[in-house]
Amino acid sequence: MEDRLQVFAGRSNPALAQEICDYLGIPLGQVSIQCFSNDNIFIQIQESVREKDVFVMQSFSAPASEHILELLIMLDALRGASARRITAVIPYFSYARSDKKDHPRISIAGRLMADLLVAAGADRVLTMTLHSPQVHGFFRIPLDHLTAAPVIADYFEKMGLEDCVALAPDAGSAKRAGDYAVRLHIPMAFIDKRRVSDRKVEIDAVVGNVREKNVLIFDDEIAAASSMVGTVEAIRKYGIKNIYAGATHGVFCGPAIERLRESPIHQIVVTNTVARGPEKHLDKIKTLSVAPLFGEAIKRIHTGESVGAMFTDR
Amino acid sequence: MEDRLQVFAGRSNPALAQEICDYLGIPLGQVSIQCFSNDNIFIQIQESVREKDVFVMQSFSAPASEHILELLIMLDALRGASARRITAVIPYFSYARSDKKDHPRISIAGRLMADLLVAAGADRVLTMTLHSPQVHGFFRIPLDHLTAAPVIADYFEKMGLEDCVALAPDAGSAKRAGDYAVRLHIPMAFIDKRRVSDRKVEIDAVVGNVREKNVLIFDDEIAAASSMVGTVEAIRKYGIKNIYAGATHGVFCGPAIERLRESPIHQIVVTNTVARGPEKHLDKIKTLSVAPLFGEAIKRIHTGESVGAMFTDR
Amino acid sequence: MEDRLQVFAGRSNPALAQEICDYLGIPLGQVSIQCFSNDNIFIQIQESVREKDVFVMQSFSAPASEHILELLIMLDALRGASARRITAVIPYFSYARSDKKDHPRISIAGRLMADLLVAAGADRVLTMTLHSPQVHGFFRIPLDHLTAAPVIADYFEKMGLEDCVALAPDAGSAKRAGDYAVRLHIPMAFIDKRRVSDRKVEIDAVVGNVREKNVLIFDDEIAAASSMVGTVEAIRKYGIKNIYAGATHGVFCGPAIERLRESPIHQIVVTNTVARGPEKHLDKIKTLSVAPLFGEAIKRIHTGESVGAMFTDR
Amino acid sequence: MEDRLQVFAGRSNPALAQEICDYLGIPLGQVSIQCFSNDNIFIQIQESVREKDVFVMQSFSAPASEHILELLIMLDALRGASARRITAVIPYFSYARSDKKDHPRISIAGRLMADLLVAAGADRVLTMTLHSPQVHGFFRIPLDHLTAAPVIADYFEKMGLEDCVALAPDAGSAKRAGDYAVRLHIPMAFIDKRRVSDRKVEIDAVVGNVREKNVLIFDDEIAAASSMVGTVEAIRKYGIKNIYAGATHGVFCGPAIERLRESPIHQIVVTNTVARGPEKHLDKIKTLSVAPLFGEAIKRIHTGESVGAMFTDR
Amino acid sequence: MEDRLQVFAGRSNPALAQEICDYLGIPLGQVSIQCFSNDNIFIQIQESVREKDVFVMQSFSAPASEHILELLIMLDALRGASARRITAVIPYFSYARSDKKDHPRISIAGRLMADLLVAAGADRVLTMTLHSPQVHGFFRIPLDHLTAAPVIADYFEKMGLEDCVALAPDAGSAKRAGDYAVRLHIPMAFIDKRRVSDRKVEIDAVVGNVREKNVLIFDDEIAAASSMVGTVEAIRKYGIKNIYAGATHGVFCGPAIERLRESPIHQIVVTNTVARGPEKHLDKIKTLSVAPLFGEAIKRIHTGESVGAMFTDR
Amino acid sequence: MEDRLQVFAGRSNPALAQEICDYLGIPLGQVSIQCFSNDNIFIQIQESVREKDVFVMQSFSAPASEHILELLIMLDALRGASARRITAVIPYFSYARSDKKDHPRISIAGRLMADLLVAAGADRVLTMTLHSPQVHGFFRIPLDHLTAAPVIADYFEKMGLEDCVALAPDAGSAKRAGDYAVRLHIPMAFIDKRRVSDRKVEIDAVVGNVREKNVLIFDDEIAAASSMVGTVEAIRKYGIKNIYAGATHGVFCGPAIERLRESPIHQIVVTNTVARGPEKHLDKIKTLSVAPLFGEAIKRIHTGESVGAMFTDR
Repeated sequence: MEDRLQVFAGRSNPALAQEICDYLGIPLGQVSIQCFSNDNIFIQIQESVREKDVFVMQSFSAPASEHILELLIMLDALRGASARRITAVIPYFSYARSDKKDHPRISIAGRLMADLLVAAGADRVLTMTLHSPQVHGFFRIPLDHLTAAPVIADYFEKMGLEDCVALAPDAGSAKRAGDYAVRLHIPMAFIDKRRVSDRKVEIDAVVGNVREKNVLIFDDEIAAASSMVGTVEAIRKYGIKNIYAGATHGVFCGPAIERLRESPIHQIVVTNTVARGPEKHLDKIKTLSVAPLFGEAIKRIHTGESVGAMFTDR
Repeated sequence: MEDRLQVFAGRSNPALAQEICDYLGIPLGQVSIQCFSNDNIFIQIQESVREKDVFVMQSFSAPASEHILELLIMLDALRGASARRITAVIPYFSYARSDKKDHPRISIAGRLMADLLVAAGADRVLTMTLHSPQVHGFFRIPLDHLTAAPVIADYFEKMGLEDCVALAPDAGSAKRAGDYAVRLHIPMAFIDKRRVSDRKVEIDAVVGNVREKNVLIFDDEIAAASSMVGTVEAIRKYGIKNIYAGATHGVFCGPAIERLRESPIHQIVVTNTVARGPEKHLDKIKTLSVAPLFGEAIKRIHTGESVGAMFTDR
Repeated sequence: MEDRLQVFAGRSNPALAQEICDYLGIPLGQVSIQCFSNDNIFIQIQESVREKDVFVMQSFSAPASEHILELLIMLDALRGASARRITAVIPYFSYARSDKKDHPRISIAGRLMADLLVAAGADRVLTMTLHSPQVHGFFRIPLDHLTAAPVIADYFEKMGLEDCVALAPDAGSAKRAGDYAVRLHIPMAFIDKRRVSDRKVEIDAVVGNVREKNVLIFDDEIAAASSMVGTVEAIRKYGIKNIYAGATHGVFCGPAIERLRESPIHQIVVTNTVARGPEKHLDKIKTLSVAPLFGEAIKRIHTGESVGAMFTDR
Repeated sequence: MEDRLQVFAGRSNPALAQEICDYLGIPLGQVSIQCFSNDNIFIQIQESVREKDVFVMQSFSAPASEHILELLIMLDALRGASARRITAVIPYFSYARSDKKDHPRISIAGRLMADLLVAAGADRVLTMTLHSPQVHGFFRIPLDHLTAAPVIADYFEKMGLEDCVALAPDAGSAKRAGDYAVRLHIPMAFIDKRRVSDRKVEIDAVVGNVREKNVLIFDDEIAAASSMVGTVEAIRKYGIKNIYAGATHGVFCGPAIERLRESPIHQIVVTNTVARGPEKHLDKIKTLSVAPLFGEAIKRIHTGESVGAMFTDR
Repeated sequence: MEDRLQVFAGRSNPALAQEICDYLGIPLGQVSIQCFSNDNIFIQIQESVREKDVFVMQSFSAPASEHILELLIMLDALRGASARRITAVIPYFSYARSDKKDHPRISIAGRLMADLLVAAGADRVLTMTLHSPQVHGFFRIPLDHLTAAPVIADYFEKMGLEDCVALAPDAGSAKRAGDYAVRLHIPMAFIDKRRVSDRKVEIDAVVGNVREKNVLIFDDEIAAASSMVGTVEAIRKYGIKNIYAGATHGVFCGPAIERLRESPIHQIVVTNTVARGPEKHLDKIKTLSVAPLFGEAIKRIHTGESVGAMFTDR
Repeated sequence: MEDRLQVFAGRSNPALAQEICDYLGIPLGQVSIQCFSNDNIFIQIQESVREKDVFVMQSFSAPASEHILELLIMLDALRGASARRITAVIPYFSYARSDKKDHPRISIAGRLMADLLVAAGADRVLTMTLHSPQVHGFFRIPLDHLTAAPVIADYFEKMGLEDCVALAPDAGSAKRAGDYAVRLHIPMAFIDKRRVSDRKVEIDAVVGNVREKNVLIFDDEIAAASSMVGTVEAIRKYGIKNIYAGATHGVFCGPAIERLRESPIHQIVVTNTVARGPEKHLDKIKTLSVAPLFGEAIKRIHTGESVGAMFTDR
């Protein structure tokens, strides 16, 4: 199978790339990535990719602009080097959060990134847990959209908690939390956040019942953790049992680790779509690997098997 | 101003087109739309549009395919006739509901329709209340997205109801109902609908408090009204006061009128984005006109004034 | 051969689709086509098409707009589902009749349809008897253009008629009738139709000799049959023998069946590019199947054999 | 009006370009066209065209490839020089004759030329008497299609001939000759040419009545005049009066002048879309100027008036 | 003039942007540029740009990826906000140095950046001193290419040095140094640099005569200054008079300032295309402003006057 | 290997095409190329190319426009005939010399030709010794860029000359001559040509040391040989030994052969990228064949092996 399959990776998450290659039983492709003195990126693919089926992995984690341009330049280099097909593998497509024009004169940057990927030479995309499922429609090339929900839900299910409720941090996330609620057969609730002004958010009320329950807060990503901490604050007065948090993308930037350490959250479950240095270690963060999901999807895309069946056949 | 401005319309909603032209103080452009005996549409623009700023209006109401192709052929005819700029005005862009790939091997048809409009010659789009705001990102041409929410909320505000709650028919609509809740300064709730199987929907529970309140159900469109009726069913046991419903698009197809007549809903407030024959009359349906909004937006697009300011300056 | 070949069909002509699959010895692909209550089409391909060579068949017969959008949505779904190559098979491409701008400010809709097919994801097209051969040039993707003329001419040849003339219903069709005349080694004639005004057509004269002959009228399609009936009217006074008619596309819409029943035409020979309900049955209509032509062409496109050789090698 | 209007021309037909500029009352734009020693064309536009409305004229007469590349390079230079709008004015678009795929594995070169013009920077096209009206649909940019038929028909009308018939040299031209027949209120006929093999054309028969009439042969272009001479041959035996010929494009290449001199054709009426050297002079060729038609069309395109009205209002 | 003209700027070089606006006599456009906690850029244009002629300035200086993405997102926001025309003003287009494929499997990133700018919405580009003039051809939109050479040459001319030679740091720069030599009417020379291996550069020889001359080294940019320092090293043994350096882009990154301070170069003349913090101050660096050149070019692009005439008319 | 590989050629260099096919061990593909009487090119591919990997060879030698259009029409015919992949093989891409905008309002025609090739259907390009390496970036499709330098340098190396210097005819060619100098381990020099006015070139000086050496002048092409002859003139006074010249493309047009015959150049080494008639024979011109390089590259592109390795592995 693998004679025509190659996987390359940018510098955002080398550990995940290696894990995926281990799953596939192939070596990670050699690529040299450097910066010229004028801060321009210089990339050379170190192996012939002519007529190969190439996958190139990059997460849009910080430094995001650097990682994005790195991917675009790799795509262009692979196209110029006559790869037969190029799939951009983006475990964390951060700009998916810029998915609507909720202020005048802003860019729907998720759509822009989709267009840039195509302009640079991507033939298809493989990604995970886009902020909203509509972002799929921003791409005019085929996209396979993996979800980490089964992995995270399984983990919680095995914990055997009782009296649980799935809590969404705001109305816009209600659907996502609802999906987890269905998987775990538990009720749901959400926080009715209201903005008094552009700067000030006043958290009004919990909609739904969280009183004396184990509360499982679900989100797509945890970045600065301010939303997570605000949510915890909002439910504190209800005499809840334990608080857990689940999210696909554990970004943990800025004060996130400090805030979470001090928060009463019992455990935080994320995946390894975003690489995390040792300075972001916290005992109560549990990191699940999505490498088998990405590895299996790459294998199926390469051989022409159904990717959807990975989820529906479970 | 209007010497270079022209408005044409397909056959879907001639009354709204006329109202918009009345607002603008210009006559509706002449166009001949016929069907050949082999069911092919034949359209001739009856006035010179060379170097004009042309707006062409069509709602994607039933027969939807006919109305869509009619619009596409008009766009192409206008382009071939050397219009300077062509704006597709689509008060009801029904395919916005096909905005994600929630089943394998389906089309994100909202994106497809966006691409077809561009292929046929649209330079820009003016539309209202897309099913999700992300659909904006499906378009690679500028789009102005109007909302009927201020008009509908104003109407409810003037009713002077007390003890109200904004209710969303499902988790995915929580954000939209929340927007109304903020405008009306009332709390919100939603129905936690769960599908037991592909065919069967089991309505589980109301999340939030509706007991002994005036319940205002908000949605983007009311088509067959099955979702609306199911929502009413779900809250009945809570001893509520009166039920009201608000939606931008009053599609009212199939058994909708019958269902709503028999339902305990007190009043249904919609707009005239979709034309409605006399057989779809019901005393308790109140129809608000969005012609002033569309007329004003067209005027501003034509003269280069801010469309966003129509909403932020209120 | 067929392990990577799949054939799907829209709802326009299921019998022909089945016949083609029978020729190929493969099952017709499973697809679910439904309408939402707001009249939007919802299509789900029911089998994995990843990396398959997919053909999707649809005739643009009435309801034409519905059938066209159905095809466009299927194409988009197949592209999103990662089909390796998608060929739109359009036995009856009705909009080919809109092939020129003979009035100001109209769409050359045949070209528009070609662009829409490409926008929706078609990689190539297989079609039959376009109204004019120039329509081929409207497509920027490869197109295989089959002709039913050999099949229809063979049928007439086997009838063994004597003293025949091939008659074109107007000057624009003279070339097509001439092609039949050459195949059948008979002389030709045409009707010199003149329009007195936009509404009124005055049929002037028969150019060529039809007196006391068996007249074979050839056209690309018979829709409302008004042209056919007018042609018969024009030649009546010449003391002709029998009248026959041949056309690829037997559309037979509106009053066509009634008109033909009452006309003195002896026999009408068409093919099954357009499906026909039992209410359109008429003893004197003979329907020849083009399924073997389409089946063979699909087989050759799939395996990379010459399609042109199907006709030149006869 | 003319402050923003500029007309440039390639080297194919400078006299016509000058006549058009005279009509418009503006000087012909300065451009330097040279060949490098390696036979590459080097063109420099000699005046600023920034934000101007530029028309650039070139006929595709011999040397056709040279003239076409010259036009493409001029279009690209004008685009790079920031012209606001560029209209390619092509009085004689010779490749329109390559409008169908009547042999396997050939190019529909008319479509290719349309695509090359767009690739090089044309925003619109102005042309005359395309070989078939369907060629219009090959262009994805707006095209204005002038016809010389009124000018040529007027000329014949003023001759006051009696007992005339319009004759088409083959079945495919019947429609064009028919258009002339309608303008002149005369009957029509055509030659039923049949090819016995690829190389040999056997002219069978005249369809229609030419006996003892003044025969007016109409075609779109006269190149080597072999078709014209063959047509004359075919009708000779019918005891006709005089023979006349009318065509928009007087190409007159190879043995054309010699053949026409010796033929019994009484007069040949063409226009000046193709430049003709003194060596191609023949007393019986009458050349009508289309400069007023092109000049008026350019004026109307520039000012945004209807071009169609030039013909319908006559 | 300026009622429809707007200038915005990214964060790379605000001082130059302000200087340009001062030249034009208009205020710099308001724009808010922020980073979300997940390191994604969020940009909001703070003024209506509908139907305006917008110029947006950004230099690709460090952090280059950040500055490039910032520009791309601004372009997309402006396009979505219905600007009439968008010109990307890039005083320092650093990726122009990646202009050829001198190693296998690398990206010609200068071309890629050109494509990304177009994908994001740029209608035209205004830039200065591209590394090679061929980079102009990478853009499929109109580009105005300014040069700082007249400004820098004027400065040296006014110094009144005698016995000068223009020196290029390598053979590939000989043409550029030659252009300066012509402007200053002095002879030229260059360094014949040879690479012994990929890592090691062995400087062989000075080609041309530098002995006992004032040596003026010319380059397009000075980044880490290693090339500049190596050049000085190579000519030291020739008993030269003073050494001067001239370059358009004074990038001065990494050890550049330190190296130049310690080098025997007498004076370094650059422009302000790249912003420089106070820590990069050095008395012997003279910075000339290109704001008048950019301001004048913007004015001419806006009003449709010739930009080329800025240089040829001097 | 060759069952799916086909090579066709235009009329520019049939001998090279045959040599390449001999190298590959396959017959040259049959194609019919004719001119219609109106000077339009008519091309028919004479073999089925469906699903084949097709290479089509054409040099842009005189008549250049004819050869270019011939290639474009062949590409389009091959695309329409369903070739799987089409590679344009252009041994001499003459328009590469038009690679920059060194005068206002000219076309960068090298870029235009790249776009025309893509518009006509080329999927990739194989070419040799582009005038500047940046021209590679003009193509948005993969391009393999061969160099004849190793072949030419080898030839000189085997001559065993001593005391050599590589001489560039102008500053812009210094880099190219430098590459030869490195291969041959000899020093280099160049001519500092200065233009006094647009028409007059005044050759100033030789930069570098040529005195009493064997001078090897290197260029990319020799067309009219005026540059070569001028270079010889400039160095004559230095008491040199013998003069040799090397160039990839031996165009030899106009007075070239005469000039070279009379010049003191000892030997001129070129390749066969451009066909040369017997009238261009000169004993002192040595022609090396690049057929093995093209043949090997085609083989590797077809089988997916590295083309770069042809050069780096030497």
